[in-house]
Amino acid sequence: MAECRFPFAKYPIVTLAHGAGGRFTQQLIDDIFSAALPHAQVRHDGALVELTDRSGTVVMSTDSYVVKPLFFPGGDIASLAVTGTCNDLAMCGAQPKALSCGWIIEEGFPTRKLYDLARSMAAAAVEVGADVVTGDTKVVEKQHGDGVYLNVTGIGMPRFASHPDRIRAGAAVLLSGDVGRHGCAILTQREDLQLQEPILSDCAHLWPQVQRLQPLAASVHCLRDLTRGGLATALAELSEASATAIVIDRERVPVSDAVASVCELFGLDPLYVANEGRMVVICEDGAEEMVRAAMGADAVCIGRVESGRGVVANSAFGGSQVLDRLSGEQLPRIC
Amino acid sequence: MAECRFPFAKYPIVTLAHGAGGRFTQQLIDDIFSAALPHAQVRHDGALVELTDRSGTVVMSTDSYVVKPLFFPGGDIASLAVTGTCNDLAMCGAQPKALSCGWIIEEGFPTRKLYDLARSMAAAAVEVGADVVTGDTKVVEKQHGDGVYLNVTGIGMPRFASHPDRIRAGAAVLLSGDVGRHGCAILTQREDLQLQEPILSDCAHLWPQVQRLQPLAASVHCLRDLTRGGLATALAELSEASATAIVIDRERVPVSDAVASVCELFGLDPLYVANEGRMVVICEDGAEEMVRAAMGADAVCIGRVESGRGVVANSAFGGSQVLDRLSGEQLPRIC
Repeated sequence: MAECRFPFAKYPIVTLAHGAGGRFTQQLIDDIFSAALPHAQVRHDGALVELTDRSGTVVMSTDSYVVKPLFFPGGDIASLAVTGTCNDLAMCGAQPKALSCGWIIEEGFPTRKLYDLARSMAAAAVEVGADVVTGDTKVVEKQHGDGVYLNVTGIGMPRFASHPDRIRAGAAVLLSGDVGRHGCAILTQREDLQLQEPILSDCAHLWPQVQRLQPLAASVHCLRDLTRGGLATALAELSEASATAIVIDRERVPVSDAVASVCELFGLDPLYVANEGRMVVICEDGAEEMVRAAMGADAVCIGRVESGRGVVANSAFGGSQVLDRLSGEQLPRIC
Repeated sequence: MAECRFPFAKYPIVTLAHGAGGRFTQQLIDDIFSAALPHAQVRHDGALVELTDRSGTVVMSTDSYVVKPLFFPGGDIASLAVTGTCNDLAMCGAQPKALSCGWIIEEGFPTRKLYDLARSMAAAAVEVGADVVTGDTKVVEKQHGDGVYLNVTGIGMPRFASHPDRIRAGAAVLLSGDVGRHGCAILTQREDLQLQEPILSDCAHLWPQVQRLQPLAASVHCLRDLTRGGLATALAELSEASATAIVIDRERVPVSDAVASVCELFGLDPLYVANEGRMVVICEDGAEEMVRAAMGADAVCIGRVESGRGVVANSAFGGSQVLDRLSGEQLPRIC
């Protein structure tokens, strides 16, 4: 077992920041979970499992969901859970195949709403061609939960390689669409902010886009979806895991007017706001155009991988900003 | 999608009984989850997943754990989660291979205890030869959880067939050891009952015993571990799923003196108290002795499968009791 280097004296208790997906979460993963669990593959969204007595491998990924509110513009905890876990499989280059669901239900939760959530789960699974094959139900007393907490774990069939280890200097950094929708959808719902047109979560399956990349697989280094901590945290993780530098043009990152307004109102940087249907694709320089075309009309090239370390966002005015992982918690319970 | 027949008007909200593993849990599974999720394999402890483009199959099983207290005599939530999920795989005749862990941590939980739990998880995984390969961490605000809720999902390699469909009249019903320890360990801890010698949970891996049954696989119909709802509920499930009757001799079911005393004190029937390291094995009549020997010194034959329906426990005094699924909730948050 690896030595445990977690600074227990400095951080004696778990805080909300440890769940925000940024630097504190990483410390928990690196210094507590990885130290205790040496086989955990912590540098990516899922793990490759070599099947004994078989030629092949499957990919396994898990996520628990504690999003608040349970129903939000553009989705609900069940559709989010299915798309979130399937997206993690897709980011490993794997086609979602089988899913499990673990429901922790608070006493008093309406059974009708539970059925609505189960149907939403089913619809999201059908959409990506995966089956929910097994499940579990636990009930906790009133005030010991928030309606529903949900775990969805997935098995995927690996179709091509996607791993931070493959990232090389010179590669292009492509982004699949505009950022910040999911976080702003949750935030405006929680704050009961009345917008002319509500911001819908971008919550959606990425596998269809990933599947279109399959013929270009040799040129693809790594995929990463932008969830807790947003684009900035995803890039910081990729840079760290691959020991490279990533330089992006801030102006090339699409942000809708509505998201920009909400972020300004709450003092948020859209680059750190959560998404649930967006990804970055790191690919060979020469394959950039083909990869972009396969990703769809909303995809843009936002920067390059360079030798060195860290992530920098350059602005049109000549300024540049170092993008680190999200530090502290920006919006708790976003997924 | 199947028609939803859940009686929403009669049961408008989820109650603790829906989480107790008995009749109400079954109603939730049958009428809400199965109705919405047609591919869920709900009659067994896990699901067979046919891998696309491959010759074989894997078994997948999931359980979330909300046991209270988190540390109890003979185990903790993390060792319970690993053994519980691995036992579900074993009951499907599958060798535990890879595990995921999904942690929902309450703000304020001591980081040191979290590390203790992660180490306990690792030790339980090593014991059965499985790897914890991936995980996820979420944090909820104070008073929105109970320290830790934990999901463990497992992938297993199928080694032999075990399914209620295989059960035939004439088969022997074997029990692997004495019953009621886990539930009584939790109960005495919660009630702060001072016993001369504390009752330890039976929380343990069943795979080693199941592996010894492999050479006798052709004679084994079905395995089932005894968790929420105890021996009685497990037998009721098997009887229903296989459309057979099961008749046992109550006197042949081993119950330790300590468990018997605690059950008497609290008015519990040990046949309904939860276990976490016990199973029943339904096997061919002729193979009974060999199967019993393979199961170990504590295994006993407690009865027979007959044609008909339902479960009956005969007592030495000529009385007989119908054993139905647990109804209502006996001990909430047992696992």
